[in-house]
Amino acid sequence: MTVFALLEAVGVVAFALSGLVEARHRDMDLVGLFVVALAAAFGGGTLRDLLLDRSPVFWIEHDAYAVAILGLSAVFAFFPITARLPAFVLLVADALGLGLFSVAGAGYALQAGTSTFIAALMGTITGTFGGVIRDILCQELPSLFQQTPLYATCAFVGCYFFFLLTYLSIPSEVAGWVATAGITVFRLAAVKWNWVLPVSRH
Amino acid sequence: MTVFALLEAVGVVAFALSGLVEARHRDMDLVGLFVVALAAAFGGGTLRDLLLDRSPVFWIEHDAYAVAILGLSAVFAFFPITARLPAFVLLVADALGLGLFSVAGAGYALQAGTSTFIAALMGTITGTFGGVIRDILCQELPSLFQQTPLYATCAFVGCYFFFLLTYLSIPSEVAGWVATAGITVFRLAAVKWNWVLPVSRH
Amino acid sequence: MTVFALLEAVGVVAFALSGLVEARHRDMDLVGLFVVALAAAFGGGTLRDLLLDRSPVFWIEHDAYAVAILGLSAVFAFFPITARLPAFVLLVADALGLGLFSVAGAGYALQAGTSTFIAALMGTITGTFGGVIRDILCQELPSLFQQTPLYATCAFVGCYFFFLLTYLSIPSEVAGWVATAGITVFRLAAVKWNWVLPVSRH
Repeated sequence: MTVFALLEAVGVVAFALSGLVEARHRDMDLVGLFVVALAAAFGGGTLRDLLLDRSPVFWIEHDAYAVAILGLSAVFAFFPITARLPAFVLLVADALGLGLFSVAGAGYALQAGTSTFIAALMGTITGTFGGVIRDILCQELPSLFQQTPLYATCAFVGCYFFFLLTYLSIPSEVAGWVATAGITVFRLAAVKWNWVLPVSRH
Repeated sequence: MTVFALLEAVGVVAFALSGLVEARHRDMDLVGLFVVALAAAFGGGTLRDLLLDRSPVFWIEHDAYAVAILGLSAVFAFFPITARLPAFVLLVADALGLGLFSVAGAGYALQAGTSTFIAALMGTITGTFGGVIRDILCQELPSLFQQTPLYATCAFVGCYFFFLLTYLSIPSEVAGWVATAGITVFRLAAVKWNWVLPVSRH
Repeated sequence: MTVFALLEAVGVVAFALSGLVEARHRDMDLVGLFVVALAAAFGGGTLRDLLLDRSPVFWIEHDAYAVAILGLSAVFAFFPITARLPAFVLLVADALGLGLFSVAGAGYALQAGTSTFIAALMGTITGTFGGVIRDILCQELPSLFQQTPLYATCAFVGCYFFFLLTYLSIPSEVAGWVATAGITVFRLAAVKWNWVLPVSRH
C-alpha cells in the first residue's frame, strides 16, 4: 500500500467518522448512519467529479471504501462503546483528511484545465463539502457557515501554497505532501488558538 | 403499453403523490407542490444518472412524466378532495415504486460496469433518494434516517436477491419482476409487523 | 463588452447579492457569505448544466465571476454599510437576473434537443434554483415554496413567450431580449400588485 493510498484511506475514514458521530446524536439507525457517513466521506469528491465531468466518480470505481463505511456504520449502530473515541483523534484525522482531499481536488482540477483560482475553489470544495452535506442531512446549520476556527480558509490558502511550490519547480508529488501537511498543521493551530474570521452582523 | 412501462408509471405517480401529500402539509402553492413532487419522483433516478454519467437524464428524454406531474400538482392545488386518498393506496403504490425503481437502478448500474455492491447501492439510491430530497425541501428530518419500518433495507436486500436470481441463470427480465415483487412484499410486511432496525443512541 | 455579457453580469451580481443579504442575517463569516453567494448565483445554472450534461460548467470556464463574488463577499464581511442597499435596487436586479437566466437556460435546453416543455422547465430551474439552494444552506423553507408574489411562474410563462416569439420567426436574439424584459416586468408587476397563486391547505 502506498503512502498516498494510506492517507486517502485515513481521510475517508476520518470524514466517515465525523458523519457517524453526528448521525448518532440524532438517534439514527444503521441506514441513517450509513447514508450520513457516505455523504460526509464522499460528498466533496463527488461534487468535484460532477462539476469537472470526471467519470466514473471515484468511489463507484473503487467499492472497497463504501464496503468499509458500511462496516464502520454497523459497528457504530451495534456497539455503543465507540462513542468514547477521543475528540483529539477525530480532530487530527479530520485535519489530515481536509489537507489530503483539498490538495488532491486542486490537482484534479488543474489536470482538467481550470484556472488556479477555480482549482483552489475545487480543492476547498473537495475538502469541505462532505461536511456541509452531512450537516444538511442532519438538519443542522452547516458548521462551515458558523464562526468556528478556520477550516475552509486553511484548505483554500493551502491550495495556493501547493501551486506556489509547484511554480517553484518542486516536484508535484513532494509539493502535494508538503501542502497536505501545511493544511493539517494550519487547521490544528486554528483550533488550538481559536483563529476565526470576523462575523458580519446585520 | 408494456407491463414495464405501466409499473414505471405507477412508481412515478406514487412517488409524486408522496411529495404532494407532504408539500400540502406545508401549505405550498402550485409551484411548491410541483417542485416537491418532481423531486420526489425524479430525485433518486436523477442522482443515479448523474453518478453513472448516463445522459440524457431519463425524465428529460421522456417529458410526458413531467407534464403528468404538473397536471397532478394542479389537481392537488385546486381540488382539496384529494386529501382523502386512503393511506393504504399510497402505501402500496409507494412500495411498488420502491421495488421497481430499485431493481431498475441496480440493473442500470450493472450495465455501466459497477461491482454488485455498488449496483445494490445505486439501486437503493434510485428507490429512496427522491424521498430524502422531498423531506429536505420540506425542511423535515428525512424519514429515511428515522426509526421507521424497514425501507432502504428492503431495497438493498432486494437488489442482492435480484443478483442471486440472475446468477442462477434465471432470465434477467423474470428476475427483475420477481425481485420487484419481493421488495414490495418485504416493505409491506415491514410496515404491517413494524420491523425496524435498532437505533444507536449516544 | 456586449449587452448580453453586461446583463449576464447584472444577473450574477443580483443573485450573489440576494445570497449575501440572507447569509448576513445568519451572522456568517466570509466563508459562509462566499459559499451562499456562490450557490445563489451559480446554483441554477450548475444544475441545468449537470442535467443537460453540458461541460464544462459555465462558471468553471469563466473564473472572473467567482473572483468577483469573492470580492463582493469580502465587502459584505468587512463593511457593514452595505446593509443599507435599497430594497428596490435588489428587487429590480433580481427580476432582471430571473429574466435573463431563465431565457438563457431555455435556449441552452432547446440547443440540447429537449422538448419545449422540458426547455421551459430548464429555463425556470436556471432562473430560480440558486435561490432554493441559498435558502436550504441558510436552513430556511425556500421562499419559492411559500405563498409569495409570482416568481417561478413568471419564468415559466416567459419561456413559453420566448418560444412563441421564435415560432413567429422573430430572430432568436431579439426574441430573447423581449422575453427577458417581459419576465422582468411580469415579476415586478407581481410584486407591486401582490399577485399570488392560491395555497392548497390540508
